[in-house]
Amino acid sequence: MEVLDKAVQKSIGLEMYEIISRLFPICRSITGNGVRETLEILKEYIPLTINEVPTGTEVFDWTVPKEWNITDAFIKDPSGQKIVDFKNCNLHVLNYSLPINRIISLQELTPHLFSLPEHPDWIPYKTSYYNENWGFCISHNQLLSLEEGDYEVFIESTLKQGSLTFGEYFIQGDIDDEVLISCHICHPSLANDNLSGISIAVTLANWLSKMNTKFSYRFLFIPGTIGSITWLSLNKDKVSKIKYGLVTTLLGDPGSFTYKRSRAGSAEINKIVEFVLKEQNADYNVIDFFPYGYDERQYCSPGFNLPVGCLMRTPHGQYKEYHTSADNLQLVTPDKLEESYHVIGNILKVIESNKKYVNTKPFCEPQLGKRGLYKSINGKQNEMAMLWVLNQSDGEHSLLDIAVKSGIPFEIIRQVADTLKSYDLLIEKGV
Amino acid sequence: MEVLDKAVQKSIGLEMYEIISRLFPICRSITGNGVRETLEILKEYIPLTINEVPTGTEVFDWTVPKEWNITDAFIKDPSGQKIVDFKNCNLHVLNYSLPINRIISLQELTPHLFSLPEHPDWIPYKTSYYNENWGFCISHNQLLSLEEGDYEVFIESTLKQGSLTFGEYFIQGDIDDEVLISCHICHPSLANDNLSGISIAVTLANWLSKMNTKFSYRFLFIPGTIGSITWLSLNKDKVSKIKYGLVTTLLGDPGSFTYKRSRAGSAEINKIVEFVLKEQNADYNVIDFFPYGYDERQYCSPGFNLPVGCLMRTPHGQYKEYHTSADNLQLVTPDKLEESYHVIGNILKVIESNKKYVNTKPFCEPQLGKRGLYKSINGKQNEMAMLWVLNQSDGEHSLLDIAVKSGIPFEIIRQVADTLKSYDLLIEKGV
Amino acid sequence: MEVLDKAVQKSIGLEMYEIISRLFPICRSITGNGVRETLEILKEYIPLTINEVPTGTEVFDWTVPKEWNITDAFIKDPSGQKIVDFKNCNLHVLNYSLPINRIISLQELTPHLFSLPEHPDWIPYKTSYYNENWGFCISHNQLLSLEEGDYEVFIESTLKQGSLTFGEYFIQGDIDDEVLISCHICHPSLANDNLSGISIAVTLANWLSKMNTKFSYRFLFIPGTIGSITWLSLNKDKVSKIKYGLVTTLLGDPGSFTYKRSRAGSAEINKIVEFVLKEQNADYNVIDFFPYGYDERQYCSPGFNLPVGCLMRTPHGQYKEYHTSADNLQLVTPDKLEESYHVIGNILKVIESNKKYVNTKPFCEPQLGKRGLYKSINGKQNEMAMLWVLNQSDGEHSLLDIAVKSGIPFEIIRQVADTLKSYDLLIEKGV
Repeated sequence: MEVLDKAVQKSIGLEMYEIISRLFPICRSITGNGVRETLEILKEYIPLTINEVPTGTEVFDWTVPKEWNITDAFIKDPSGQKIVDFKNCNLHVLNYSLPINRIISLQELTPHLFSLPEHPDWIPYKTSYYNENWGFCISHNQLLSLEEGDYEVFIESTLKQGSLTFGEYFIQGDIDDEVLISCHICHPSLANDNLSGISIAVTLANWLSKMNTKFSYRFLFIPGTIGSITWLSLNKDKVSKIKYGLVTTLLGDPGSFTYKRSRAGSAEINKIVEFVLKEQNADYNVIDFFPYGYDERQYCSPGFNLPVGCLMRTPHGQYKEYHTSADNLQLVTPDKLEESYHVIGNILKVIESNKKYVNTKPFCEPQLGKRGLYKSINGKQNEMAMLWVLNQSDGEHSLLDIAVKSGIPFEIIRQVADTLKSYDLLIEKGV
Repeated sequence: MEVLDKAVQKSIGLEMYEIISRLFPICRSITGNGVRETLEILKEYIPLTINEVPTGTEVFDWTVPKEWNITDAFIKDPSGQKIVDFKNCNLHVLNYSLPINRIISLQELTPHLFSLPEHPDWIPYKTSYYNENWGFCISHNQLLSLEEGDYEVFIESTLKQGSLTFGEYFIQGDIDDEVLISCHICHPSLANDNLSGISIAVTLANWLSKMNTKFSYRFLFIPGTIGSITWLSLNKDKVSKIKYGLVTTLLGDPGSFTYKRSRAGSAEINKIVEFVLKEQNADYNVIDFFPYGYDERQYCSPGFNLPVGCLMRTPHGQYKEYHTSADNLQLVTPDKLEESYHVIGNILKVIESNKKYVNTKPFCEPQLGKRGLYKSINGKQNEMAMLWVLNQSDGEHSLLDIAVKSGIPFEIIRQVADTLKSYDLLIEKGV
Repeated sequence: MEVLDKAVQKSIGLEMYEIISRLFPICRSITGNGVRETLEILKEYIPLTINEVPTGTEVFDWTVPKEWNITDAFIKDPSGQKIVDFKNCNLHVLNYSLPINRIISLQELTPHLFSLPEHPDWIPYKTSYYNENWGFCISHNQLLSLEEGDYEVFIESTLKQGSLTFGEYFIQGDIDDEVLISCHICHPSLANDNLSGISIAVTLANWLSKMNTKFSYRFLFIPGTIGSITWLSLNKDKVSKIKYGLVTTLLGDPGSFTYKRSRAGSAEINKIVEFVLKEQNADYNVIDFFPYGYDERQYCSPGFNLPVGCLMRTPHGQYKEYHTSADNLQLVTPDKLEESYHVIGNILKVIESNKKYVNTKPFCEPQLGKRGLYKSINGKQNEMAMLWVLNQSDGEHSLLDIAVKSGIPFEIIRQVADTLKSYDLLIEKGV
């Protein structure tokens, strides 16, 4: 995993920010060309497999919906002036709107207009996936300024047979056990909710592809809810391989980290993420699983109960810009993206190296001095780390357990374990 | 259990207070006509079975004692004036006093007089069940005022072969598993210690008798200690049916609730009572079992170890009026009785409906929208309740577990579970 | 164990202080005549077995080292004056120094001089067991006063084939299960670190030898690290008999108690020591096992994982006199030694009497009154103790468990258990 260290360099935050900037203007939804265009860009970074699942496919209790595409939309005021234009901001259209081309009164129009009175300058983000409708999202100030009269409303969209598109990238490791990284790709011009998670996932995947890893890694770029349901439905046989998983989202805002545990609170992924956040020495918050949020809802449904948590900075609904036009390229910053990337990198490092060892000289302490081991290490902390690893390596305690118990950084525990192994004082459990 | 809701109406507190007022003047003891008279009154409310167990019956390590009855008692002062009269207050006689009819000096009398120096106006309540004696309880002020001279002491009582009397009322439910409600009926004119528990038990029994319940209910109206020992001794075969139980006592005073857990701290009755008290949003205190107090001592002896806790307001010995003439009709109030009744009613509601379900669509979330379930529910809390119930219903978590985990009121959890069951999304575990 | 009570009398602290005073001047090391002389003195108190293990013996990963002896050592300054003299203070010589007899310059001498800049008047204690070297330890003030010139350095020592010496004393109890008390005997003139533990162990052993005990007791007087490794290596077959153990050290200083748990934190020895310290009502600190310190490092190596904790007052390295000439007869005091002795005595009392009983009348409470048991006990606390013991004696709870749960002193719980047993209301579990 040494390459990850290089990954965490100055420019990585900026690289991810640039990916976000490229993806920002695209009008994504749970199906359609916006998703395809997004995945094509990601393919420049990693050899993504792009899957198309036809409309009407039964996926557990759900059905893959009709595909939605949109090319243009606007409202013209009674004077014929274009006052709302999809081309300026794709949030203006209620996502999954049916096509329309009519002249209607303000009274008829109003029920189709959505605004945010508490943030009168911002455009809200609204969807109507499973309830056929049409509508526009505008700032509250604009709503208040509308005068009586006839308005031309125009939406050039299609909702018809097609497919649901998702991207998947699998890296085979030394063993078939998998780590799952999943992010949603169904939000239009929203930078933190959606693009931050995507940019981090694709960048991690790119780096991991250049390494030899113990675990296999699976990256999913999927529309929220229906995407994970579709993937799980088509890949039931693979699910048992998933030993650790993270949903990555909301990772570019200035807030502190929030980790939402997987449904089975005792899962090792939870222990690892909490440990890494603690070692990070930053503010963070850990919350128990609850059945609302992102795709962890599906991964953690009772039939699967997968060890998949969700790593965020500020949780959904708890920052004011959430699901508005203010979740934009000003909200996310390269340094926060980089910090988030670094945390996930450290989580993967622990996953990769969190072994259990067996002390080959378990009766009393081995004599470290005669092997020159006291000299090979610098400082009291490393000596203590060595004694801890020897004492606890009975095949029951992982290196993470030892780091937690001793209060010594995981990286030092891992290093002395490597040293002790090279002196044949440790063997890996079950190897 | 819907009838219980109606039970908790304005007048219930007053009804219970009236029962207490009727029972207050009767001179009860662990045997004798006072108990019989009390049970006859309770029979007006519920079809009580009245049992008579003969003196001398061996009940485990104990023996049913001789029956005690009393008709009159007084002390006349040297001038011949009746200065203490059982007919004014039955606490005046040491309970289980032998008969006496003598003229004695103050010096001879004094060892047979009991008073409370710390509350000089109150008459204490004293007994001498297993140690033959006679005596009078008087206020400390009266004791101090007694002058030298000859006193006539008169107690018209009998202590002879007879029986121990107790009342029992059993309601057959859908299943044979039982809920036990037990209260003691052996105290004379004491309103909180004794009558509050009796009035609530009889009122609950009356209401339950009009309902279809899942569990069977057994109500015991018994003399303390020897009564529960006798019942347990005669009903060893029934004990294993008791799945939940409460000793009800001290439920009319103004103090906050105290729940004393059953001996096996992990028993579900404890979880349920604590949850209901917490939802009640009132002050309350939960204490671990200790082998002193009321009949929970016997139910929780190691050979039985029954899941029977004790619900009180202020515990025995912790309010100043305890076991004195001040534990009277002024200490207990209709509103506190009603609040206590309501808490026990809510406990029984949870017992009745605390099922475990299995989600019939456990892989990913079922699509609630296509079933119109989002519309069937009002408010975000109900939507969250639905998601919680679906996510946790793996046959391992009860509705109470889900209410605790989600922080959503039990009643809402129960309602959405009913809804989901009616849509075939849940089946009851093991049914 | 009643004799232990007599042990804890005024003079015991002084007796132990006198043992320390006799042993203080001897120059001990991990091998050699200083250890032999020490053990011969201990033999005056208990019939110690003295074992000699030849140099070169393989003990697990270690080898018994050459034997070191010293008769004289000094430094003469350029004027021929003896400025450092082993006969004044044996700490002056680097322990395990090779012999030397040379005239050298101050520059050559300096790397062989050790001092403590932070305590300029004190002589440090230094060793060089497994790294052949020679040296002197002096006060920092003396170091600073040395002038240029030629110094005569003289160490009359030998390092050659010989043996490692340790003392062992075994007391057979009613059962073969053992309690281990282990202390190190390898430090020269250090009073708290070494002699306090020795004096308490030998005094406890002396008293225990006069009693009938349930458990067998094994006392080890061994050089640190290599001594316990040697004993464990030679006695692998006996190790499984050890059910409780304590390393006793640093028990005479004025600090509060520190108990370091055994590696398996749930071991009963830990529960017992913590309970006794708590009942003691003094300040104390309990810390988890860590693989550094005294011989508990070896007893708690993963291959053995013995239930051996370490009882200290101020831990090693946490008092300023540690490993200096200030750890002397002024630092330790008779009253602290006595208090420490008392605590260990109480620990042994609980070990000896912490039985599990079975209530022979487990259905309801037995009638204590008819047996006169209420009269046999004085006070409410004893009545409560009786009810607790009867209620909890189901064969699962030890007397210690009952003391913890009830908050009643262990000694009272033990006494009422004896009483109840004499009335055939209890039988010992498994007897």
